[in-house]
Amino acid sequence: MYKILNNDLIRDYIDETPQIRSLLLDPDESVDTLDISEIGDGNLNFVYTIRSPRKSVILKQAVPYLRVVGEDYPLSRVRMSFEIWALEAEKALVPEHVPEIYYSSHEMSLVVMQNLDRHKILRGEMIQRVQFPHLAEHISTFLADTLYYTSDFYLDPAIKKENVKKFINIELCKITEDFIFTHPYEDNETNAYNPALDREHVRKFRENGEVKVAVQEMKYKFMTEAQALLHGDLHTGSIMLNPEETYVIDPEFAFYGPMGFDVGIYLANLIMSWYSLDGEDEAYAAYVRGQIADTWNLFAQKFKANMMHHEKERRSLQFDYPDGQKHFEMFTDRFIAQLFTDTVGFAACEMFRRTVGLAKVADVAGIEDLEKRARIEVRVLEAATELITHRRDYTSIDEVLTVLDTQSTE
Amino acid sequence: MYKILNNDLIRDYIDETPQIRSLLLDPDESVDTLDISEIGDGNLNFVYTIRSPRKSVILKQAVPYLRVVGEDYPLSRVRMSFEIWALEAEKALVPEHVPEIYYSSHEMSLVVMQNLDRHKILRGEMIQRVQFPHLAEHISTFLADTLYYTSDFYLDPAIKKENVKKFINIELCKITEDFIFTHPYEDNETNAYNPALDREHVRKFRENGEVKVAVQEMKYKFMTEAQALLHGDLHTGSIMLNPEETYVIDPEFAFYGPMGFDVGIYLANLIMSWYSLDGEDEAYAAYVRGQIADTWNLFAQKFKANMMHHEKERRSLQFDYPDGQKHFEMFTDRFIAQLFTDTVGFAACEMFRRTVGLAKVADVAGIEDLEKRARIEVRVLEAATELITHRRDYTSIDEVLTVLDTQSTE
Repeated sequence: MYKILNNDLIRDYIDETPQIRSLLLDPDESVDTLDISEIGDGNLNFVYTIRSPRKSVILKQAVPYLRVVGEDYPLSRVRMSFEIWALEAEKALVPEHVPEIYYSSHEMSLVVMQNLDRHKILRGEMIQRVQFPHLAEHISTFLADTLYYTSDFYLDPAIKKENVKKFINIELCKITEDFIFTHPYEDNETNAYNPALDREHVRKFRENGEVKVAVQEMKYKFMTEAQALLHGDLHTGSIMLNPEETYVIDPEFAFYGPMGFDVGIYLANLIMSWYSLDGEDEAYAAYVRGQIADTWNLFAQKFKANMMHHEKERRSLQFDYPDGQKHFEMFTDRFIAQLFTDTVGFAACEMFRRTVGLAKVADVAGIEDLEKRARIEVRVLEAATELITHRRDYTSIDEVLTVLDTQSTE
Repeated sequence: MYKILNNDLIRDYIDETPQIRSLLLDPDESVDTLDISEIGDGNLNFVYTIRSPRKSVILKQAVPYLRVVGEDYPLSRVRMSFEIWALEAEKALVPEHVPEIYYSSHEMSLVVMQNLDRHKILRGEMIQRVQFPHLAEHISTFLADTLYYTSDFYLDPAIKKENVKKFINIELCKITEDFIFTHPYEDNETNAYNPALDREHVRKFRENGEVKVAVQEMKYKFMTEAQALLHGDLHTGSIMLNPEETYVIDPEFAFYGPMGFDVGIYLANLIMSWYSLDGEDEAYAAYVRGQIADTWNLFAQKFKANMMHHEKERRSLQFDYPDGQKHFEMFTDRFIAQLFTDTVGFAACEMFRRTVGLAKVADVAGIEDLEKRARIEVRVLEAATELITHRRDYTSIDEVLTVLDTQSTE
C-alpha cells in the first residue's frame, strides 16, 4: 500500500525490503546505522540520499501533488511509473548514460538508484563555465540511440505500438502543452517576467501571426507525432556529469512524441547558455557554440549510421531490392532534414517559454543586473522569432549559429 | 464464453439474450420462427441476416482467423471490439451515416445491427453506373465530422490520448502496412497481376526512387501520426446507400492515424472507378469526376467550418487574443493544405496497391477484356506515380483531375 515516506519511514521500508537492505547493509547491521537525508531540490518529487558504510544510493518518491507547489497542485504519482519504465528502456539502450536502477516499486511510486555523487548538474557547471570534453559525444549518442531504437525504423511495429500505449502520459504531456506551447503566447497568470523587460518585446512576438501559427504547428506535432520514446524534458538540468561520464536523469515526461522535441529542447538550453555570456568570455562562448554544432552534427551522423546499419535487418520499413540501399539513403537524408526543421522549431518554443513562461533557466534568470538580463532576453526572443518562422529554411546547424550573431534590432 | 455461432447456435443465443430476443419476437413467440441465413460475403467475418415477422437485423461475428483465407491465417477476434468501439464513436458523431447498433458483445465478438436491406454497396452501384445525388454531401460530412471531432482540435487532450490508447489496433494496422505500403512495391508472393499487364510497367514504378521514398514517407505517416480516429478502410465497398441515405460500415480497421488516409483511400476508389470507364459513358464519367471534386471541396469546407466554429470553445489549441481568430484561420488553411498533400499521397498508394497488390477493385479487375484492363491499369500506375511524387505541388482538386486527362506515355 502506498504511503508517503519520511526519514523514519524510509528506515522501516528498507528493513522490510530485502532487495534494498542487502544492497546497503550486512544482515547483522541495523538500519539505524544508515545516514538518510533529503536533498530537497526536486520540483516534483522527494529525493533522499541513503548512505551506509559501504554504499550510498538515491531514493526518489513521487507524492500525489507537485512538490514545488504543494498539495494544492494535485499530480498523480503514476508519473513515477513513467520514470521507471523510461529509465529501464533507456538503460537497455545506452547503459553508460543512464543511472543504475537497484530497485523500483510502482505501488510505492519510488525508485532506488545509483547516487551520482561524483557528478554535477550540467546547468550549474555551465554557469560556472566548466568545459566537458566528451559532452557532445555522449549526448549525441544518448539522443541517436534512444530515438532510433524506440522508433518504427527499428522496432517490430507491434512492439512499437504496445510502447506507444504504455507511454500515454496524459498529465505530464499536459504540463508541456500548457507551459511550453500555450501560456507563454498568451497573457496568462502563470507567466513570469523580468521587471526590466520592456513588455513591448513580449507583445511583438505574441501578436506576430507567423509566430502564433508556427507555435501551434509545433504543439500539434507534439500532440500527434508518435515517432519515438522521448525523454520529454531534456534540458541541461536533467544531465549529471563529470569530465569522463555523462548521465541523463529524470525522464518522467517520457512519451512517444516527435524526435525533434528532445533534440530541440537540449539545443535551446545550450543557446540560452551562450546568450547568458552576453559577449563576455570568448573562450567559453566558443566552447558553447562548439557544443551546439557538435551535438547536432554528431547526432545526425549517428542517427543516419543507425538507419543505414540496420536497414538490412528490415524490421519495419522495407527497401529490399537492387537500388533499395540508395533509395533508403535518400529517404534517410530527407527524414533527417525534416527532423532538423522540427528541432529548430522546438528549440524556439523552449527559448520563448524559458524567457516569458513560468519556468526560467538559471543561466539567464540568475543574472542580477536586470537591465543586462533584459537585453539578453530581448535577443533570445528575437532569435526565437527568427528561428521558428523560418525553420524550414535552415539546412545546417552553422546557419542556425549565424542567428546568434545577429544584433538586436534595438 | 466465446464460441463460433452457426444457424442453430444463433437461435439458442438469441433465446438466451433478452436484448436481442425482445427486438425480434414477442415473449410467446418461438425462436424457431426466425429466418436465419448467412450472407457469406464477408472477407473477415461471418455475417447473418435474421428475420422475424416484424423485423430483420444483421448479426456479424468475428472468428479467430481471416474468414476469406481460412484457419491458416489466424487473426485475433479482438478486431470486433475495434469495430464495436468505432461504430459507437461514429454513431455519436454522424448518426445519420452509421447503422443502428442494437446489441454488441466483446466476449462473443459479435454485433447485432440495423439490416440495411433498402441499401446497396456503392462499388457495385458504380459498376452499374448508378448516380447518387447526395453521396458527396453525405461522405464529406462523415469525413469532416468523424475526423474533426475525434482530433486534438476538438477533444480535451486527456480524452484524445485515452482514445489513442484504446484504438491501438496492432493486427489490422499491420494488414494495411503490409498490403498497402509494403508488398505492392516489392516482388512479393502475395501480389497478383493481370496476366496481360506488361510487367515492365510494374518494374518502372518499383525502381523509381522518388516513388519508393514517397511511399515510405506515407507509410511512416500512417505509422506515427495519431491525428484522428480513422475508419481505416473507407473504400467504396464500405459504403451502403440508396438515393436518400448513405451509411458507412465495417470500421474494424479503426485507429488513430493521419486524416488524409481516410480521405485519400475514398478518393482513390472514385478515381479508379473513373479509369474503369475507359473514356466511355461521358455522362457517368462526368458524374464521377464531379464526385471526386465535390467530396474534397465539401470536406475541406466543412472541416474548416468545424475548426472556425469551435475555435471559441478552445478545447485544446488556444488563440484567445485580439488577432487570434485571423491567425487561427491562417493555421487552419495551412493545416488543410497539408491534409490535401497527405490525401493525394495516400490516394496514390491505394491506386498502386489496388492494381498490383493482393486486393483488387472489381471496377477494374472485373473487366473481362484483359488487354483493355491492362491499358487502364497502366494509366492508373502512371497517374499514381505522378501524384505521389508531386503531391506537394497540388493545391486544388481540379489540378489533380487534370492528371486523369493525361494520356498514357504508351
